[in-house]
Amino acid sequence: MELGASPKEVRQAIRQGRYAGGTAGLAAGHVQANLVILPQREAYDFLVFCQRNPKPCPLIEVSDPGNPEPVGVAPGADLRSDVPRYRVYRDGQLEAEVTDIADRWRDDFVAFLLGCSFTFESALLQAGVPVRHIETHRIVPMFRTSLACRPAGRFRGPTVVSMRPIPAPLVPRAVTVTARYPMAHGSPLHVGDPARIGIADVMRPDWGDPPTILAGEEPVFWACGVTPQAVALEAKPPLVITHAPGYMFITDLPDHALAVL
Amino acid sequence: MELGASPKEVRQAIRQGRYAGGTAGLAAGHVQANLVILPQREAYDFLVFCQRNPKPCPLIEVSDPGNPEPVGVAPGADLRSDVPRYRVYRDGQLEAEVTDIADRWRDDFVAFLLGCSFTFESALLQAGVPVRHIETHRIVPMFRTSLACRPAGRFRGPTVVSMRPIPAPLVPRAVTVTARYPMAHGSPLHVGDPARIGIADVMRPDWGDPPTILAGEEPVFWACGVTPQAVALEAKPPLVITHAPGYMFITDLPDHALAVL
Repeated sequence: MELGASPKEVRQAIRQGRYAGGTAGLAAGHVQANLVILPQREAYDFLVFCQRNPKPCPLIEVSDPGNPEPVGVAPGADLRSDVPRYRVYRDGQLEAEVTDIADRWRDDFVAFLLGCSFTFESALLQAGVPVRHIETHRIVPMFRTSLACRPAGRFRGPTVVSMRPIPAPLVPRAVTVTARYPMAHGSPLHVGDPARIGIADVMRPDWGDPPTILAGEEPVFWACGVTPQAVALEAKPPLVITHAPGYMFITDLPDHALAVL
Repeated sequence: MELGASPKEVRQAIRQGRYAGGTAGLAAGHVQANLVILPQREAYDFLVFCQRNPKPCPLIEVSDPGNPEPVGVAPGADLRSDVPRYRVYRDGQLEAEVTDIADRWRDDFVAFLLGCSFTFESALLQAGVPVRHIETHRIVPMFRTSLACRPAGRFRGPTVVSMRPIPAPLVPRAVTVTARYPMAHGSPLHVGDPARIGIADVMRPDWGDPPTILAGEEPVFWACGVTPQAVALEAKPPLVITHAPGYMFITDLPDHALAVL
């Protein structure tokens, strides 16, 4: 995929099967989003869950039932085909990983798009704050915490966080830069001692790669988009479809559209 | 009502019938909220409407169906009795104005609390930005605009704005101070020429009192909490209950809880 491609060009390449890889770095400067698709029966409680837990679950779009076009953030896009890889879960169990869900789409499906950390990581880099897992081509380490989400109906569970080690003098800047993006998880949930948020061993993440924390760096924790996925799966609804990790939906929104304005 | 009373004390006085007036200035430093109550059947579309129109409809709490306690923002409070004056509408028509809705409460009622302009007006005053209608003991002028809200199901309509004349050199400060409160309508939608947002005559508001705009002042327009009420009424649901204008629900949240942090 050429790096200068527009969001629409990348989505078309994905739709036509010409691109099937991860989306990190593509359509730079545009918002990428986590995807959760639920039947409308479950969608009400999930909406309330997102309202009650805005840091891990920043909702940027809710589709009309049965309509696969996210008109608010990407007119003309098709959520049945424009994500490179989907995961289909039945009763909380992975049933299939597929590149298209047109044959599975139903008239009562509601798609939720949630802001993702790519947006604030791009802002950190532009502000001169290094992001270790990007420099080292690893997956950001993610952890279950002791911070419970506020439940809504069947949806409940712990807040999941991602961790980035930040040189101590740059911690204030990392906070203020990401605070400008509440629709992409916003400011950190925690800085420093991992035990304070229930993380026993910061070197053993629940998802992603173990971190490298250098002398003079503080671990900084942000709410993570894995939270709504984990919560949606633990609720074991009859059917839920998500993107595969790292294979996001690319919107037409410029990054600044998510900034506090 | 004594001015130093806590949110809980004010709510108890209202609940017991010892206070029945407007809430402006009470429990200073705490968030007051607009109230919209709908049967759950209508609640889904209203939730999506708020997600799609966050500036006029900043959702700070959604109750569990049938539960009149807004546990997230005022544990122990009772939304059936703790608002000084309610309005009950059937099919979009005002049926009654009452001080208690206990006898009308239903197991399928969902209560929505939305941030209100009192929060950002308090921040403006603390930042040294004068607020004309408060100084002159008038009601802020409000206008229908040509800015359409994004519809959701049966809910649709124009964005309603409130207008405050601000001395031109203080306009930037008025913008940055209110931008910190996206859950209380956030930064202005518009500064200057009212015609640009479809307001034919800024001296003839659709609600509230005509303004006084002095030489050297710019009209500044913020999204207004009348929007969701107007939209809920125009949708003519079988039943909707709201607070009466100026008779708000007082939460336990300190104002800073609504600031971007």
